[in-house]
Amino acid sequence: MTTPSSGHRSTARRRARARKPRNDAATAATRVDILKSAAKAFRRLGYHGATVQQIAAALRMKKGNLYYYFKSKEDLLFACHQYSLDRLTQLLADVEAEPVSPETKLRRLIHGAVHLILDELHGTALFLDLEALSATHLRAIIAQRDLFDKGVRALLDEGTRRGDFTEGNAKFRSFVILGAVNWIPRWFNPGGTSTSDEIAQQFADYLLDGLRR
Amino acid sequence: MTTPSSGHRSTARRRARARKPRNDAATAATRVDILKSAAKAFRRLGYHGATVQQIAAALRMKKGNLYYYFKSKEDLLFACHQYSLDRLTQLLADVEAEPVSPETKLRRLIHGAVHLILDELHGTALFLDLEALSATHLRAIIAQRDLFDKGVRALLDEGTRRGDFTEGNAKFRSFVILGAVNWIPRWFNPGGTSTSDEIAQQFADYLLDGLRR
Repeated sequence: MTTPSSGHRSTARRRARARKPRNDAATAATRVDILKSAAKAFRRLGYHGATVQQIAAALRMKKGNLYYYFKSKEDLLFACHQYSLDRLTQLLADVEAEPVSPETKLRRLIHGAVHLILDELHGTALFLDLEALSATHLRAIIAQRDLFDKGVRALLDEGTRRGDFTEGNAKFRSFVILGAVNWIPRWFNPGGTSTSDEIAQQFADYLLDGLRR
Repeated sequence: MTTPSSGHRSTARRRARARKPRNDAATAATRVDILKSAAKAFRRLGYHGATVQQIAAALRMKKGNLYYYFKSKEDLLFACHQYSLDRLTQLLADVEAEPVSPETKLRRLIHGAVHLILDELHGTALFLDLEALSATHLRAIIAQRDLFDKGVRALLDEGTRRGDFTEGNAKFRSFVILGAVNWIPRWFNPGGTSTSDEIAQQFADYLLDGLRR
């Protein structure tokens, strides 16, 4: 549900709109703080169990103030997914633009994705429900995710065409790579001895050894 | 929360206990049906959003009857995780007992895990929250998961010791394999053209090519 329905919220939003606009960088930083708090609450209590009140309270923010940045709980969930995908899409674009071999591009992509997930996105959207998204938002997320998947497949295909990689199904290979990387938050222990550098290195070594002639 | 608190439920449970016990096979089959309904509801509505009433209703079962099989919602979540892990643990034990090379064992383990996840466990516990489990249940699930992980690492180590696999960190390699396999439900389209056989084959080929000398 994205339609506002509570009177309390409408009042809060009117009040928020009346507030003086902040500068763009500060707004963007606050949005990211809110997304991290939202993702944490969604993971702990489930999307349906978490309330906007709790998400705001964890940031010592008033609920009405939060509605200045996001118009509904579903909007927050969508933004959580979008934020992670935007970061991954940017990483892919950066890697694609480098004048290096497909193998080096793929290695940099795996390194970058492991760092993103462990050092920046840990606690954002990877494990959150897609089911709770509105149909429009779900389509947008799936379309962006598909673009990312296609970019990874293109790197794999390029490597095979050049004869650097063995023949193989790029679709399934890309799912092996993305699955391995996306699953990291499930076993990673932030208090443990493994560093994100070490994981990135080991993952890239294993996954590239399976492609190389 | 595992402590029963509602008067309605206590009555239902008393009634359930008074019922004539069913035979073991029928009881086990009903438990699995309930687990599948529970996992589906948990995934769709979140653990906190789903109710035991909804889980029972989807099976045209009375809530009181469900409490004959599971004593609380948290008990259902625990049983969902336990059921998936029990099947994977059994698969590992079967593979370990075969008089074949570590490479063949690992190939059979990947094949078996892909089939389990796609053909039998699809819709069970892989993506469900661990956070909602009670401390005792969480410890039990983590202990069983660790045993499974250790079994996979032992196969990798055995292959390296025999000189079949290249040197490498068995812990990270096992996480690559398990992540790739566990992530499948996130992209698999049951109405699509990929079969579980094809996925199992392609995943095993890629993941074993990365190990072989």
